[in-house]
Amino acid sequence: MKPQSILETALYVADLDVSEAFYRDLFQFPTLIADERMRALKIVEGQMLLLFKLGGSTTGEATAGGFIPPHDGRGVLHLAFRIGENEIAAWRENLKRKNVEIESEVEANGGHSIYFRDPDGHCLELGTAQLWNVG
Amino acid sequence: MKPQSILETALYVADLDVSEAFYRDLFQFPTLIADERMRALKIVEGQMLLLFKLGGSTTGEATAGGFIPPHDGRGVLHLAFRIGENEIAAWRENLKRKNVEIESEVEANGGHSIYFRDPDGHCLELGTAQLWNVG
Repeated sequence: MKPQSILETALYVADLDVSEAFYRDLFQFPTLIADERMRALKIVEGQMLLLFKLGGSTTGEATAGGFIPPHDGRGVLHLAFRIGENEIAAWRENLKRKNVEIESEVEANGGHSIYFRDPDGHCLELGTAQLWNVG
Repeated sequence: MKPQSILETALYVADLDVSEAFYRDLFQFPTLIADERMRALKIVEGQMLLLFKLGGSTTGEATAGGFIPPHDGRGVLHLAFRIGENEIAAWRENLKRKNVEIESEVEANGGHSIYFRDPDGHCLELGTAQLWNVG
């Protein structure tokens, strides 16, 4: 048995409003859930980016449907989003327009990565699927 | 402009061999890269789970194709994989067979989640896409 895909990936952030604004402004991810503990941003259908307030999920969460277990990430995390081969130049421009500094660009396997930071310093990457021998 | 999908999500682990074996045994993810710093496991085509050795990526990585920036996650992270609605019972059995204890199950939005832990205590979820109003 294999899972079908990534359904949720999570980051832990100092300020939910600041991070939500960053991801919404840069990537156009709509917000599906917003409360004091977390924000759920829709990357694409069936793939969510969850932003959790640092230290806000250490006791778990009782819900009508059951108990959501505790977690609490720390440190500088890494996450990559897939972009098209023909979108690299446009993403460079887009980042520049949004005043997001490009930290590095890397070529590997015929694929291309653009690295930059989110407001918490998390290490974000826009990468083509060729990095993983796809496409 | 929007990214197309999640390309990579990352966890930080105490023992790469132990974690790789856990994810490979439970989910059948093949290993595409294995070195002392990290393991790259293929979830599905174009979606990777990267396991990084705790404290092993703090200085970044010079490669022939460019500089991979530093990162170093800590704490107890969260990650969810998508499963089919009709696979819930089979996944319960599969987890039991692999001696992975189910910590909790949650119903929300007509979707279903099964929560358990990886060897580092990271909070893993197998969830149906209905959790996010998909399907």
